[in-house]
Amino acid sequence: MANKPSIPKGTRDFLPVQSLRRQYIFDTARKVFQQFGYVPIETPAMELSETLLGKYGDEGDKLIFQVLDSGEKPIKASQQKLSKINLKEVFREVTKELIIELVENLEDFGSNQSLEFSEGLIEQWLLEKSSLIGLLDKGIQNDVASSLAPLIYDFYINSIYYKWRHGRADQSRVEFFNYVTNPPVRKRLIEESLTSFERKYTSELSKYEDLSRDIIIGRKELYTSASEKALRYDLTVPLARFVVQNQNELSFPFKRYQIQPVWRADRPQKGRYREFYQCDVDVIGSDSLLNEAELLCIIDEVFTNLGLSDVRIRINNRKILSGIAASAGISEHFQTMTVAIDKLDKIGVDGVKEEMLRNGLPEAGVKKVLNLIKLKGEATGTLKMLAGAVVGSEEAYKGIDEVKSVLKALPEAVREKVELDLTLARGLNYYTGAIIEVGHDDFPSSICGGGRYDDLTGIFGLNDMSGVGVSFGADRIYDLMEEKNLFPETLKAASQVLFVNFGKEEVMSAIRLAADLRTEGLSAEVYPDEAKMKKQMKYANDKGVRFVVIIGEEEHRAKTATVKDMLSGEQDALNQKDLVSFINDKLS
Amino acid sequence: MANKPSIPKGTRDFLPVQSLRRQYIFDTARKVFQQFGYVPIETPAMELSETLLGKYGDEGDKLIFQVLDSGEKPIKASQQKLSKINLKEVFREVTKELIIELVENLEDFGSNQSLEFSEGLIEQWLLEKSSLIGLLDKGIQNDVASSLAPLIYDFYINSIYYKWRHGRADQSRVEFFNYVTNPPVRKRLIEESLTSFERKYTSELSKYEDLSRDIIIGRKELYTSASEKALRYDLTVPLARFVVQNQNELSFPFKRYQIQPVWRADRPQKGRYREFYQCDVDVIGSDSLLNEAELLCIIDEVFTNLGLSDVRIRINNRKILSGIAASAGISEHFQTMTVAIDKLDKIGVDGVKEEMLRNGLPEAGVKKVLNLIKLKGEATGTLKMLAGAVVGSEEAYKGIDEVKSVLKALPEAVREKVELDLTLARGLNYYTGAIIEVGHDDFPSSICGGGRYDDLTGIFGLNDMSGVGVSFGADRIYDLMEEKNLFPETLKAASQVLFVNFGKEEVMSAIRLAADLRTEGLSAEVYPDEAKMKKQMKYANDKGVRFVVIIGEEEHRAKTATVKDMLSGEQDALNQKDLVSFINDKLS
Repeated sequence: MANKPSIPKGTRDFLPVQSLRRQYIFDTARKVFQQFGYVPIETPAMELSETLLGKYGDEGDKLIFQVLDSGEKPIKASQQKLSKINLKEVFREVTKELIIELVENLEDFGSNQSLEFSEGLIEQWLLEKSSLIGLLDKGIQNDVASSLAPLIYDFYINSIYYKWRHGRADQSRVEFFNYVTNPPVRKRLIEESLTSFERKYTSELSKYEDLSRDIIIGRKELYTSASEKALRYDLTVPLARFVVQNQNELSFPFKRYQIQPVWRADRPQKGRYREFYQCDVDVIGSDSLLNEAELLCIIDEVFTNLGLSDVRIRINNRKILSGIAASAGISEHFQTMTVAIDKLDKIGVDGVKEEMLRNGLPEAGVKKVLNLIKLKGEATGTLKMLAGAVVGSEEAYKGIDEVKSVLKALPEAVREKVELDLTLARGLNYYTGAIIEVGHDDFPSSICGGGRYDDLTGIFGLNDMSGVGVSFGADRIYDLMEEKNLFPETLKAASQVLFVNFGKEEVMSAIRLAADLRTEGLSAEVYPDEAKMKKQMKYANDKGVRFVVIIGEEEHRAKTATVKDMLSGEQDALNQKDLVSFINDKLS
Repeated sequence: MANKPSIPKGTRDFLPVQSLRRQYIFDTARKVFQQFGYVPIETPAMELSETLLGKYGDEGDKLIFQVLDSGEKPIKASQQKLSKINLKEVFREVTKELIIELVENLEDFGSNQSLEFSEGLIEQWLLEKSSLIGLLDKGIQNDVASSLAPLIYDFYINSIYYKWRHGRADQSRVEFFNYVTNPPVRKRLIEESLTSFERKYTSELSKYEDLSRDIIIGRKELYTSASEKALRYDLTVPLARFVVQNQNELSFPFKRYQIQPVWRADRPQKGRYREFYQCDVDVIGSDSLLNEAELLCIIDEVFTNLGLSDVRIRINNRKILSGIAASAGISEHFQTMTVAIDKLDKIGVDGVKEEMLRNGLPEAGVKKVLNLIKLKGEATGTLKMLAGAVVGSEEAYKGIDEVKSVLKALPEAVREKVELDLTLARGLNYYTGAIIEVGHDDFPSSICGGGRYDDLTGIFGLNDMSGVGVSFGADRIYDLMEEKNLFPETLKAASQVLFVNFGKEEVMSAIRLAADLRTEGLSAEVYPDEAKMKKQMKYANDKGVRFVVIIGEEEHRAKTATVKDMLSGEQDALNQKDLVSFINDKLS
């Protein structure tokens, strides 16, 4: 390959500084999650396709990457071969030869042999025939053979014996064998057998033709092999699968976090990648609203620790939205309503209104909905007004109570930051209670979001496991932090100290001193090659090394060193034995 | 899905304690790598297939997982549809309509227009036509269109213009347009054109029929799409690809580490997984032997920090092995020799001897090799004896010098642990200098290994970039550490403090105190549900929580708390305001 190498579209390499910064985000989140008693899990990148497919809607299914073993290609090649075969012709030939062989073999049995040659024997012959021809796929071959064998056996014994019995009443087996092995009789028998057999197995064969056609066009086999494994699309479905599969190993309520990549075959564009990380934190098996409150504290803590204490944390409750729909008389359009409301930021009130009307919602209902969701201001007041407006909707009341409880369980400092936003809908997600979304005024998309599912694990057969959680969008948080220049200066892709390499002898002091610095917890490296001073200094500069230590011939002899502080430009000469404390002083 | 869910064979879920322990290994390695000035990178899970295939031998290629978009299934469906189409008929129809349209368009050009409507225009019409019919795969469509367009253009212009010129000598263009747009003439022209065109493009079309057949049976398109992306098989080839692709962003020598999963479609068995992590640390672009020494220090440091200071670190040099082969007169069998020697641990000296003889190596040569590689003991002495035995092999001398230099650059404490083992071969790897392998007496497989490649990035077109590195087998190190019980007790999937939940009111104290503890850097959680005391205590016990704090109705009123130390069983009553310092004291 002489072309410049590249990577699949929508995927990215991360250079050292980027990797360090990503790691910083993950470590910060991880630390907070653990402080709140959440524990990590990891699930495999590949899940069984049946685990993933059908969980994200038709559109989601299309975005799932399916995984093949390389070894699965030969299956396709044999399917290709098979597609060129007229299966009926092949079977007719095989059967014809088989019957001729059977009759010929009767001669060898001799008059004192038992007639009871087994079905197994016929099956074996049939298999040998078809494998000699070598055209049939192994799976089909066994299937056909074992199913055709008794048919052939029955036909053969019955038709021949019947004919013989009919001609001569109650004869001995010796006479039967003499009869069927008489050449002209045999010839006629073979012909009659073939004709009658072909008629009999036509219906049987048609089954196998269908099967082979399935294989040829890939409807069955190929599909199955291609869809056996797939890359995970998010961390929520794998979590549900994990909880059900490992339920006996877990303590409930199960508070877990998970920081792993997910893959989506989305059309790549700015800020949208085909591989990206999710940081999910969820509680499974508790419907207490303290969990919602705790997650809001976690959100506040993570973003504050990242220097983003000015994020906008918005909450709402699907029960409130459902109650609003009910009181506006459009309950049956709930999904349409939430999907439309979800676009409010993008298309404005008029756009939302238009979308709802276009989808057949009555104008009065739409108007009422839009009036209600635009209620704003301090949460207690808003909830009070809302309660007055949705009179009679039990569900709305329940949602209102839930929001109140969540807010009550928040420490004052967090409560002040959380905003009740009735226009928050998270349209396509199957949340049933709280919904949460975090944004930032300087960033176009949400950077964290989640909510409660009443029955998270039901899809895998474990009922009554409520789940609530949020997902941090690490890649977007990265972009936002970079834009706002929030990464610590210390996240440099460099060691703190670089020793210049002056040659075989001098470098020995450097190696020893570098080890001393590392023992003190510092990072230090020795330039490996005896390159020109200028080149080594450029390396230190490019990487952002803080101190360059020079031990030339003279310094080596005198056990001294010259230290250059690349930040201030200052240069100091000192004894080698004082180096560690010198650097430590400078850094503290 | 009512069946119990599962995961693909050879993959694993990691429960909380396992995840924490794995993270501990990664963090330990990461810290050491960074202290030595190595910087992290990340590469995508999916690489282009062309990047991976052919780099790991035929056996390796078979173990590569290939990735399909789910969206690629519709391609298959359209191929299936396509297989039912008579392609020739379709093209005839398209072309007929096209020519009619072309002639009709001539009218619009008017008499003062140029005849030079471009090939591009025809191509566009052809494309529109075929996409309207919507039966053709995008790939084929462009291909066919761009290849047929000039054919149609040539035919059209030539046949019509020829006919016209023939009828009337040297007429003006105005007259030409009048002629071809005269209705009866036009009708005849179209008919003649069609007949002659059909004859002309028959041979052209047959090519596309072949192509479409290829697509139908999946030989070309499907194959290509299936092999466009693949999951990475190791971190070395992606590193080479990364360095070449990002060379302008990097400082050389480039010292990088990378901790990411890799995937292999190997037959799963104990200790062998289809998804596992590698921790690789490499230096690219420096052939100094100080790098080898540094990597040995890193190995020692990582394993010492993990509590495995008793690992066996063995080194050798492929140049020595090559020199031994030369001096034994079996240079042309070098690969066979190293593959055999590599099995020494498993099949013993006799087995290695037998394998070499069986593969056609001369007995005298085999004997000499076996005599040399069994040299043992202190490195300096061994190298001296070896130098005496390989007289005349420049390569062996070079290897001996390299080993000496590496050993010399090691700090005494590390040098003592590194063992020169001439039987170390790392058979199938393409190392050219140092080879390194780390094992442990209590573990059957190597837990770390690597060496130097003289031309790591050459496969991607960047020459003269020497690389040296080692890879830590995180999963095996995990197994070994678990067996030897080396994980710190503190790695528990639990917070340090759990507050029992006694109800809406009481829990408010708990929430506030938990937040105080976290501010102090401790981990604390509040049980979310008002469950029975017994259930909450069991939860604390199962997770391994150290302190359980009880604030019932009475404690809540009195602003006190009862703290149970789950380790000692001791129970203390105290004021809530003293809780933080109490826990801190207990932990310190």
